[in-house]
Amino acid sequence: MAVNFSELAVEGVRSLRPYQPGKPIDELARELGLNEADIVKLASNENPLGPSPKALEAIKAELADLTRYPDGAGFVLKKTLSEKLSIAPEQITLGNGSSDILDFIVRVFVNDGDSVVFSQHAFAIYGLVAKMVGAESIVTPAKEYGHDLEAMASAINDRTRIVFVTNPNNPTGTWNTRDELVNFLNEVPAHVIVLLDEAYFEYVHEADYPDGISLLKDYPNLVVTRTFSKAYGLASLRVGYGVSSPELADLMNRVRPPFNVDSFALAAANATLLDEDYVKESIALNDAGMAYLTGEFDALGLAYIPSVGNFISFKVPDGVNAMDVYNGLLRQGVIVRPVANYEMPEYLRVSIGTEAENTAFITALKTVLS
Amino acid sequence: MAVNFSELAVEGVRSLRPYQPGKPIDELARELGLNEADIVKLASNENPLGPSPKALEAIKAELADLTRYPDGAGFVLKKTLSEKLSIAPEQITLGNGSSDILDFIVRVFVNDGDSVVFSQHAFAIYGLVAKMVGAESIVTPAKEYGHDLEAMASAINDRTRIVFVTNPNNPTGTWNTRDELVNFLNEVPAHVIVLLDEAYFEYVHEADYPDGISLLKDYPNLVVTRTFSKAYGLASLRVGYGVSSPELADLMNRVRPPFNVDSFALAAANATLLDEDYVKESIALNDAGMAYLTGEFDALGLAYIPSVGNFISFKVPDGVNAMDVYNGLLRQGVIVRPVANYEMPEYLRVSIGTEAENTAFITALKTVLS
Repeated sequence: MAVNFSELAVEGVRSLRPYQPGKPIDELARELGLNEADIVKLASNENPLGPSPKALEAIKAELADLTRYPDGAGFVLKKTLSEKLSIAPEQITLGNGSSDILDFIVRVFVNDGDSVVFSQHAFAIYGLVAKMVGAESIVTPAKEYGHDLEAMASAINDRTRIVFVTNPNNPTGTWNTRDELVNFLNEVPAHVIVLLDEAYFEYVHEADYPDGISLLKDYPNLVVTRTFSKAYGLASLRVGYGVSSPELADLMNRVRPPFNVDSFALAAANATLLDEDYVKESIALNDAGMAYLTGEFDALGLAYIPSVGNFISFKVPDGVNAMDVYNGLLRQGVIVRPVANYEMPEYLRVSIGTEAENTAFITALKTVLS
Repeated sequence: MAVNFSELAVEGVRSLRPYQPGKPIDELARELGLNEADIVKLASNENPLGPSPKALEAIKAELADLTRYPDGAGFVLKKTLSEKLSIAPEQITLGNGSSDILDFIVRVFVNDGDSVVFSQHAFAIYGLVAKMVGAESIVTPAKEYGHDLEAMASAINDRTRIVFVTNPNNPTGTWNTRDELVNFLNEVPAHVIVLLDEAYFEYVHEADYPDGISLLKDYPNLVVTRTFSKAYGLASLRVGYGVSSPELADLMNRVRPPFNVDSFALAAANATLLDEDYVKESIALNDAGMAYLTGEFDALGLAYIPSVGNFISFKVPDGVNAMDVYNGLLRQGVIVRPVANYEMPEYLRVSIGTEAENTAFITALKTVLS
């Protein structure tokens, strides 16, 4: 009799549905018979500026060592990061994207039957990595689409090991102030880890937006994650990092696969970190695109959630199905992101693109809505 | 009172000691004040031929898309692999190195308190990934440094979920015949997964060496892993894969991080897979180097374990400490691999290099031993 392996899988995996990424350009091109060059992808919060020239140079310099394993310790990148962030290299855990760090912290601290806390509308990966190890996800209701940090602190129970806070949050673009975050950290029991996900940190201009790394000295239970996939323009290469106490970094590095970040990723991240002009230009492009899109949404009478990230979620008109708008945009060669799986079925998320991409999106949106 | 986070970690992580990779060239250069170009690294079973020109081209073609996320589904690479291996794309799980697949299969099937079986002298990662989820490692004694497959089948108990078989094995270079493997698979209970690690598959010439993929149709509990890090020369980029039934691949893909293999890795692996001349040349270079090194060991009166891989473990003379030889070689600018952590304290493993690298190693070895 044939064995049913799905029934033999660990409990969390049996019902696990993997993360659904944004639709890739080549996939849409194959499906619709379009040229890739004619497709506008604003679905994955990627950097529309194109690569940093310094990253390209660094990658070319690595080509001769293609056959060599990466430096598993990430010596050079950790050194540059530690100088830039005024931290010790021993505080850093490198990840194959910052999502790797979320997985590590769960594997270090969460047992089958434990719980983790995060907000409604928060990043889908938190629930997935918790489910894999058999943990319960406690999801607190959002407040005007943003994190209700008081509710999150109150939701912590005896089995809670980690609270995930995203600042700013994706896909809502909402954020919490320094005061809100400090009050929350003061409420969280000292043995419960706070994972502060700052993937969109670089885009935020608000004066009372907190720098999580500055809080590490006061909160040894804090882990801050950042990524090179957004403002640093290296999504293709998968590199992010966690910053924490050396004790927590040591524990996370134990479960880190020895070569989780490849040689090209290490080199390109290091080069882009030193390319301050690139990051500034990326942010300026985002600011301009955000102003344009919110202006157009206002003109079209479309509601949206004010966002400090490199994306914005807008509401389709009453009586219109968001998936119809999504599919209509696809047929126009524009890929945005449905967010029904974030309990926002009447919204679509659009990443801020170049001026040409933003215009193409608005033109396509007008066509679809008319 | 300060929280001791190490005590709060899950049981397997509390005492976990991470995998120790071979010493990187730049690390030795920093330590000894040597030029990187003067260092010979034969420590990580890397391909000494240098990159495939087709891989370099493929990487350059990806540079324009540096800011884009990879294709999480690996559409193009899976298509090429499926055609080359005569399997369905649904049978493939892509890994950030084939070690990723070992981790996935453990996360899918192994609960805290379960067990896994592997051989003495087998790859260190098996024990680490099992320990992380709280599993017991049952290690069976080797037979003349190779896998004793009968002993491994007999060691399976009620809590055993996975048996790891490495063919050929690293760091011993030993291998099992098709008949031995089939007899073993017939003994293993149908619900126990056999992970057959074929990282060094391409280097083996022996007529009765089995192709694990040809056995999949008869053994639905079998998962075969291969890598692009060895004969395909892409260690820097981290890409490997598992081949199994679609059912097992679906389960492994659920725990796979959505972008675990990056765009450059996907493109370079696809290009090298189509570059048959490169792989042939890699194997020929390995054959010549293996013949040279075994000849020199014989001439020096040094014992070694006959190997079908791209590495060979040799025994230091009686009364000599292997770590002294290792350190002596380091001072000569030659990096090999100590294997005391594989219960082979009197051995050192050397990877097969280019003709110049092999000669440099033998010259340095003679100096150190004299």
